[in-house]
Amino acid sequence: MTVIATRQPSTSDLPGIRGDLLARVEQRLEQYTESERARWKQTNPRAAQPVEAVIDMVSRGGKRLRPIFCLSGFLAAGGDPASAAAVDASAALELLQAFALIHDDVIDNSALRRGRPTIHVHHAGEHSARGWLGEARRFGEGVAVLAGDLALVYADELTFDFPPAARRLWGELRTELIVGQHLDVAVAAESVVDPQLSRWIAVCKSGRYSIQRPLLLGATLAGRTDLAGAFEGYGLALGEAFQLRDDLMDAFGDPGATGKPAGLDFAEHKMTLLLTLAVERDARIRNLLVRDGDTPWDADLIRQVLEETGVRATVERTIGELVDRAVTAISSAGLDPAWTDEFARLATLVAYRDR
Amino acid sequence: MTVIATRQPSTSDLPGIRGDLLARVEQRLEQYTESERARWKQTNPRAAQPVEAVIDMVSRGGKRLRPIFCLSGFLAAGGDPASAAAVDASAALELLQAFALIHDDVIDNSALRRGRPTIHVHHAGEHSARGWLGEARRFGEGVAVLAGDLALVYADELTFDFPPAARRLWGELRTELIVGQHLDVAVAAESVVDPQLSRWIAVCKSGRYSIQRPLLLGATLAGRTDLAGAFEGYGLALGEAFQLRDDLMDAFGDPGATGKPAGLDFAEHKMTLLLTLAVERDARIRNLLVRDGDTPWDADLIRQVLEETGVRATVERTIGELVDRAVTAISSAGLDPAWTDEFARLATLVAYRDR
Repeated sequence: MTVIATRQPSTSDLPGIRGDLLARVEQRLEQYTESERARWKQTNPRAAQPVEAVIDMVSRGGKRLRPIFCLSGFLAAGGDPASAAAVDASAALELLQAFALIHDDVIDNSALRRGRPTIHVHHAGEHSARGWLGEARRFGEGVAVLAGDLALVYADELTFDFPPAARRLWGELRTELIVGQHLDVAVAAESVVDPQLSRWIAVCKSGRYSIQRPLLLGATLAGRTDLAGAFEGYGLALGEAFQLRDDLMDAFGDPGATGKPAGLDFAEHKMTLLLTLAVERDARIRNLLVRDGDTPWDADLIRQVLEETGVRATVERTIGELVDRAVTAISSAGLDPAWTDEFARLATLVAYRDR
Repeated sequence: MTVIATRQPSTSDLPGIRGDLLARVEQRLEQYTESERARWKQTNPRAAQPVEAVIDMVSRGGKRLRPIFCLSGFLAAGGDPASAAAVDASAALELLQAFALIHDDVIDNSALRRGRPTIHVHHAGEHSARGWLGEARRFGEGVAVLAGDLALVYADELTFDFPPAARRLWGELRTELIVGQHLDVAVAAESVVDPQLSRWIAVCKSGRYSIQRPLLLGATLAGRTDLAGAFEGYGLALGEAFQLRDDLMDAFGDPGATGKPAGLDFAEHKMTLLLTLAVERDARIRNLLVRDGDTPWDADLIRQVLEETGVRATVERTIGELVDRAVTAISSAGLDPAWTDEFARLATLVAYRDR
């Protein structure tokens, strides 16, 4: 038994080791943002407001999905748990996510995020309540735009010491995220029905941004860029499953569990991956989505047709197949078996996060 | 004569050398953004749209003030004109400025920038014209927010190879810019009359962001961090002059010359440095600015009182004194006399850019 423990010292307590690192990510986030808040507060309490908005969003929690994948990629690649590199990278990913959420909420006009009013709604409300000058909507959105900008800059500050290969990855990850967001907006406005494009957006925003690139960032910081192929196979398949689950949760989910209103994608005319798959399968769906001026989509009818045509059930099967594909891809990486098992467990967790 | 030419080889043709580098900055901007546009266009023409918005803003020209100061700081500090470092830094500063302008125009609801419709107004117009789904205003602002985000990321990509001291400066410059923008928004909404705070905002946004930090970035890339003190003295004084000129041009300027409507600060209830100085000097101004619900300020009356009370003339004198102070600060730096003269010339150019 002692021999086994010595042979696999780093995998005998995977959740424990990663848990310790995740706790350090939280500390890093708090320490960095609080020192910024304290610094700007000395200039003027108002100067600390955008920092406070960033802290507000980061401290709302969330799944910490990207840090989990980054740390897992780092540890599975043999990274030193005592190193600060993967902790900083994970904190940077979470600040980048705060940036994305704050701006996304403005762009989508979302009212709730992680169960609380979004940043722009909160500040527009304060503007109204205090009777400040100008338009409350513009003020709230302006504060949120700047707070998101600040989160983007802070995310980047934590990548200061990255080696060149990791910096390149970081640059690509940010660019893809923004282009993916724009495509979401454009496709919704133009009501584009293009399954290939919708799948590309899902790959870009969920596969690459949320899973593949965080994994590879961790592996790169551990010096194992050779894992790129396996992590790409795993990340892209699981990313598509992630996006399909997201779409299903938005369409059929319980707002109490998701922390945001149901049917928001429908309200915003989002041509989600779910809907494009549905259109491919049944012409009735297309008719429901055909635009008629600014008439809102009939969310209840769409839900009903998604059920009746069997699209919902098919998408559930597709999610299962994508998880299998992700697990197969990671199995070929030659990782320590304990890590292969852990990645399979993570795949299930992500694809069935509504359970 | 040959001896003199040999003693001062780098300063005998200052405008020429800096002009060559400025031309390389334009090439770098074009080459970088066009390669991004080409790359994303392959995915989908819509994926290239945020890149095209960045190109649109950058290619509108502008004074290239920050590149000029960055290159001047670099060359005055003895930087090698053949090096790419200051060219990349200058291109990064210009992309950062594109980010700031695009987001600022959304936040201020500006219609024109550099004589053409702002990015959000352009895209809102396209949305309306094509009868796309959703609200045109939200679409236009969403596209602009994402385009600004992309410009921020691109700016950062060009700082990839900076040495640590320059990276730290770059980080501070971006953070200050965003905090300064937020203070502008907050002070306008709350109609804060606080000359010290308004001066701090001017120092932050104009002094540090536009002059001092670009200069110091150039000098740091040339390995001369010892110039920090002189450049701070020059940059902060000249920055205040710059801001006062900006305020005067907004209040009294000719829209044909400035490329944007006159009196925008008044329309947005901006508590500019000009107005805070005016309030300190004459109580009538304060009465004009006292808020009465959302009633717009009476721009013509404010202009009239600024003239009658002599505030406009006093501010002109202050600008002259600030230029003197800037020139004195730079004279103590021990630069080559040709550069001392050039910095004096730049100070006049910046402070009297309406002429």
